[in-house]
Amino acid sequence: MNYPNGKPFNTNKSQVGRTHKGQTHRIDYGGRGMSLENDIEQSNTYYLNHGMAVIHKKPTPVQIVNVHYPMRSKAVINEAYFRTPSTTDYNGIYNGRYLDFEAKETKNKTSFPLNNMHEHQVKHMEACYQQHGIVFLLIRFKTLDEVYLLPYSNFKKFWERHIKEIKKSITVEEMRKNGYYIPYQYQPRLNYLKTVDKLILDESEDRV
Amino acid sequence: MNYPNGKPFNTNKSQVGRTHKGQTHRIDYGGRGMSLENDIEQSNTYYLNHGMAVIHKKPTPVQIVNVHYPMRSKAVINEAYFRTPSTTDYNGIYNGRYLDFEAKETKNKTSFPLNNMHEHQVKHMEACYQQHGIVFLLIRFKTLDEVYLLPYSNFKKFWERHIKEIKKSITVEEMRKNGYYIPYQYQPRLNYLKTVDKLILDESEDRV
Repeated sequence: MNYPNGKPFNTNKSQVGRTHKGQTHRIDYGGRGMSLENDIEQSNTYYLNHGMAVIHKKPTPVQIVNVHYPMRSKAVINEAYFRTPSTTDYNGIYNGRYLDFEAKETKNKTSFPLNNMHEHQVKHMEACYQQHGIVFLLIRFKTLDEVYLLPYSNFKKFWERHIKEIKKSITVEEMRKNGYYIPYQYQPRLNYLKTVDKLILDESEDRV
Repeated sequence: MNYPNGKPFNTNKSQVGRTHKGQTHRIDYGGRGMSLENDIEQSNTYYLNHGMAVIHKKPTPVQIVNVHYPMRSKAVINEAYFRTPSTTDYNGIYNGRYLDFEAKETKNKTSFPLNNMHEHQVKHMEACYQQHGIVFLLIRFKTLDEVYLLPYSNFKKFWERHIKEIKKSITVEEMRKNGYYIPYQYQPRLNYLKTVDKLILDESEDRV
């Protein structure tokens, strides 16, 4: 399914942090500034501990090529490569419903660039949507510090527009019209399931 | 969620193949004899291509410590460690239903040893079951070449027996009583969703 890709730096920032090309670098898991990812992780832990939902981030797909087993100590992977994920980063179950979503951040103030998305990820979202899953994107505009839940059903038209090379991005205005704004709250900070409830309600009305 | 563990050799066979301790070894992705895993992968591809379900194996959780970015070529992970998975290996959606399962093979002719399972994986299965997911194990007895689907609801008692150190394994007879035998067929070879249909039917009757 997955295949090694040439640009892990772009596709795996969340996992390896920022590193300058042409040098070896220790990964700083602390301040990697992935606040959307951290917020989602906190929310998922909260949901799990409160028996509300079971949602996990999938591990980064890695092609393991070489493993060393030193005596009396744990195995060391000393050659591996990043693969392009063939699915979204997050999925799980919420009240018997299958949830599937991708989370993206952009520094861009005015729009969300769609080159952030892989075509096979979108294909995966489409397939899950066809199976009646709850499929969406969580998009954070860093500079505005605004997070939106964009249902896949609304995302589709923007993706088609992108494929047809009409427009490469989704403007903030379009996001506000087509997505749900998620206000930060106390606990969990990013309570996106509250917004998922609205989505479920709206989609059930649409589908009836 | 995940944490590095000391025994990747036991927990990641399916990913790294058999390797002798104290030496470096190339991984043979071809004939690694993981026929249950291969069968499931074939079935999942079949289900996806026929719009029947979207089920994927999760990548092996890896703790990436060191990445090198050579000029003009893709990033190389040159230090990483295996983590203990905090969830099961497989999940996805089938007709709007959330599916979650673990797949295990055993060479043991007479019983399935429960030390193959991690406690946090069982906790995960319990949590998914509480959310009304379809949760089960696919267990293959290599020597008998028999595959069984064991619903989590039936697996529970055997796990408790194991925790209380009464019995460390599930006998083949117990598996036949508490699980569903999955016969091999033409395409897909291991059509486990057919058996999931039975499980859904039986559980709906139990829960009504």
